[in-house]
Amino acid sequence: MSNKELVFGHQNPDTDAITAAMAFSYFQNQLGYETEAVALGEPNDETKYALDHFGMKAPRVVETVSNEVDKVMLVDHNEPQQSVSDLDKVTVTHLVDHHRIANFNTAQPLWITARPYGCVSTIITELFQEKHINIPANLAGMMLSAIISDTLLLKSPTTTDHDREAVKYLAKVAGVEDYEKYGIDMLKAGTNIAKKTDNEIVDGDAKTFELSGNKLRIGQVNTVDLDDVFSRQADLEKEMRNLMDQNGYETFVLMVTNILNSDTDLFVVGDHTETVEKAFGKKLENKRMNLPGVVSRKKQVVPPLTDAFEG
Amino acid sequence: MSNKELVFGHQNPDTDAITAAMAFSYFQNQLGYETEAVALGEPNDETKYALDHFGMKAPRVVETVSNEVDKVMLVDHNEPQQSVSDLDKVTVTHLVDHHRIANFNTAQPLWITARPYGCVSTIITELFQEKHINIPANLAGMMLSAIISDTLLLKSPTTTDHDREAVKYLAKVAGVEDYEKYGIDMLKAGTNIAKKTDNEIVDGDAKTFELSGNKLRIGQVNTVDLDDVFSRQADLEKEMRNLMDQNGYETFVLMVTNILNSDTDLFVVGDHTETVEKAFGKKLENKRMNLPGVVSRKKQVVPPLTDAFEG
Repeated sequence: MSNKELVFGHQNPDTDAITAAMAFSYFQNQLGYETEAVALGEPNDETKYALDHFGMKAPRVVETVSNEVDKVMLVDHNEPQQSVSDLDKVTVTHLVDHHRIANFNTAQPLWITARPYGCVSTIITELFQEKHINIPANLAGMMLSAIISDTLLLKSPTTTDHDREAVKYLAKVAGVEDYEKYGIDMLKAGTNIAKKTDNEIVDGDAKTFELSGNKLRIGQVNTVDLDDVFSRQADLEKEMRNLMDQNGYETFVLMVTNILNSDTDLFVVGDHTETVEKAFGKKLENKRMNLPGVVSRKKQVVPPLTDAFEG
Repeated sequence: MSNKELVFGHQNPDTDAITAAMAFSYFQNQLGYETEAVALGEPNDETKYALDHFGMKAPRVVETVSNEVDKVMLVDHNEPQQSVSDLDKVTVTHLVDHHRIANFNTAQPLWITARPYGCVSTIITELFQEKHINIPANLAGMMLSAIISDTLLLKSPTTTDHDREAVKYLAKVAGVEDYEKYGIDMLKAGTNIAKKTDNEIVDGDAKTFELSGNKLRIGQVNTVDLDDVFSRQADLEKEMRNLMDQNGYETFVLMVTNILNSDTDLFVVGDHTETVEKAFGKKLENKRMNLPGVVSRKKQVVPPLTDAFEG
């Protein structure tokens, strides 16, 4: 095998998972590494909109990596169950992430830059700046898109001053004059609920979490009108139950997030619904609860669930 | 509680564990955090020599941290069993490390800079440089000492170009004209075997590792003459067996390292001796095996043991 390394984000890739892999691969290649950005799935509609807008190609999709390389670089995730299925057969040499660290164990020291920022593309922007490496305009446009996506146009509580600075910097490099207008167009492109299958809605951006031995699946779908999603509630529940049966999830939590007013309806199916109620101090009605101001899975949904399941 | 955070390295602190806490605390305070460097034990003779030489005081020793703060910053370690006993009661907000990641789980995203360098003080030197913050001369002297200690004067295979650059830079800032002469004096000050108790020799720099469920204690002692250590082999074995009984270690591995010629004799007591033999492809004689060129626990001893125990 050559010294080549693959760089990739998590399963069900969102705009940051795809873009951070492209950006970190480019960065490492400038430093002399031989890397290729790949993805663990096809780009979603939002990411496709951004790729089209900036004239870039989606990374190649891979199912496994150990058949090609023996070393990899991870971006935007570190939990093995969110990664490639044969991760245990390769060595992780680099990690750039903005998530909690969980079940990430290595045999050897490695290079890690993790920051509690809103977006991995923000961290990578700072890496470029520290090393005084220029970011190509189209890549900067993708990184701008990733930050807008992860922070819902800098409105999510995960947003930091680092993200705001990076957005300004990248918009300039990318030649995007009105990033707010571009951002709303891009976010809307990702919310075409009518076009989505039941599976895409509930599982398209879902991740698995193990909380005190309980396997939770937590999905999130963005919309500009909650009714577009909940008019299909019965079918969505059926699909969630299918996925639970197939994959052994005990609980399926779907965040239905209105990107215009930054609210989320939580839609909960399966066991442990009282634990979910305890986590948020609210009762479920018709399996749903409204959480005003909640938009971030990582910052506003996973931590209270973790506390409730482990408490 | 105030917003103050404590910064500390691993148990049985060596020169890097003490110094990296001092340096990272100083760095974070310059950035506006309120931190204090503390230590999980008294400085060893080598560290004392360096502190005396550069006119600095040892950090306060703590047994627990959650009685004082609810947030901490870790340096030079991430495995919980090498850390403070009440680590699970506080939040880790920052980590700077050069070890493998193992059993380090967080509920929230955090700030991590890990690099596969020879010494954490090298990583912190680069953090200062990136932020254009000056390192005080006496602190630079300690950081120089830490790198010399961890890399055995840049001779360990863990040494990287980053460590070599940092040594040059820090020697200049600290006003140390001949760092090789200073380094040998400092290393020798740490190897006064005659002055050490049996416990200090076997456990003074020891760390616990869990390999496939087996609890190994791996110590290391530096000397300029292996006989200074092995003339006390029977007493040392007794002390190792005491510690195994008290703490439930199944195997105790002591690296006796000659810093002048960079060789190590491995002294192995307890169960799984065949697994240790398998790890290094050598037979134990009188519970010992000679490993020429081996000086690094992290790079040359833990990885083959990990492979052998997990293989």
